[in-house]
Amino acid sequence: MSRPAHRRPEYHKINKDLFVLTYGALVAQLCKDYEKDEDVNKYLDKMGYGIGTRLVEDFLARSCVRRCHSYSEITDIIAQVAFKMYLGITPSVTCNNPSRTEFSLILDKNPLVEFVEELPAGRSSLCYCNLLCGIIRGALEMVHLAADVTFLQDTLKGDRVTEIGITFLKKLDEKKYRRKK
Amino acid sequence: MSRPAHRRPEYHKINKDLFVLTYGALVAQLCKDYEKDEDVNKYLDKMGYGIGTRLVEDFLARSCVRRCHSYSEITDIIAQVAFKMYLGITPSVTCNNPSRTEFSLILDKNPLVEFVEELPAGRSSLCYCNLLCGIIRGALEMVHLAADVTFLQDTLKGDRVTEIGITFLKKLDEKKYRRKK
Repeated sequence: MSRPAHRRPEYHKINKDLFVLTYGALVAQLCKDYEKDEDVNKYLDKMGYGIGTRLVEDFLARSCVRRCHSYSEITDIIAQVAFKMYLGITPSVTCNNPSRTEFSLILDKNPLVEFVEELPAGRSSLCYCNLLCGIIRGALEMVHLAADVTFLQDTLKGDRVTEIGITFLKKLDEKKYRRKK
Repeated sequence: MSRPAHRRPEYHKINKDLFVLTYGALVAQLCKDYEKDEDVNKYLDKMGYGIGTRLVEDFLARSCVRRCHSYSEITDIIAQVAFKMYLGITPSVTCNNPSRTEFSLILDKNPLVEFVEELPAGRSSLCYCNLLCGIIRGALEMVHLAADVTFLQDTLKGDRVTEIGITFLKKLDEKKYRRKK
């Protein structure tokens, strides 16, 4: 179902506010359904995983990304191409360990929380945007890259920025990272 | 919190697939939560209503729509400006009664169902996109226009097109339809 490369028609774009408010409704519903923040977080991650596995093929077809040779390159693609394409923002990337398997995406501004002033009462452990972690994890897994993806900082929890940590779990096997044909 | 008119920066757009898949996750969650299709439909409408009441102010600020003098004009604005702005499509409009209070928005293509092949098993009465009806109803109510908004046809139910019916419930009072300052 992938579309031809370079085809990025305008109808592929929609208004962000509609998405942000719909996402808010989804989180609110999960908060109704699950008492524990951990369960909501887990569920958002799981939903995101499913979305990531479906988005990735189209992303590869439309983005025309070249073959990556390092986790660093892969993280740059996530930040500069995927985030730009899907959320209209470009996080900065930092590498967090000498073996270059742990990275952070730093979002100065998080569009998903634009309408959220604070976490709901009694929900201090909620990772409101955990869907994003699941999406990244799901998309990476589809190109045979296992990773832990979690929020390390969150403006909704009083942090200055939002930071998503990506820890790649296996040594990169260059032949394997490409998607299955 | 409205933004200045004419300001429609590109960052206001996001990728449609992300929205469509997230919306699918929301509907799937509600189908888990509510056994009866009618309850899912009601809940989607209710969620949409909340979203519509929040979107409308920004819509009025950014769209610069002129004062409307008839339900027909209002429906045209919904189809040609709001749908275009938020979903990137422009439904056609038909008027369904001589007193010009009942209209239909006809969507040849419904972006929200792009990843949906058919309704889930046992969910034949589900109005998958009922959020849209709620959004329209909520937005209209914020400009003092009461309306019934329902799906009349749905490609997911085998219809050739998707048709959203809007029935305005009161005689238009020109002074009242404008939003509260």
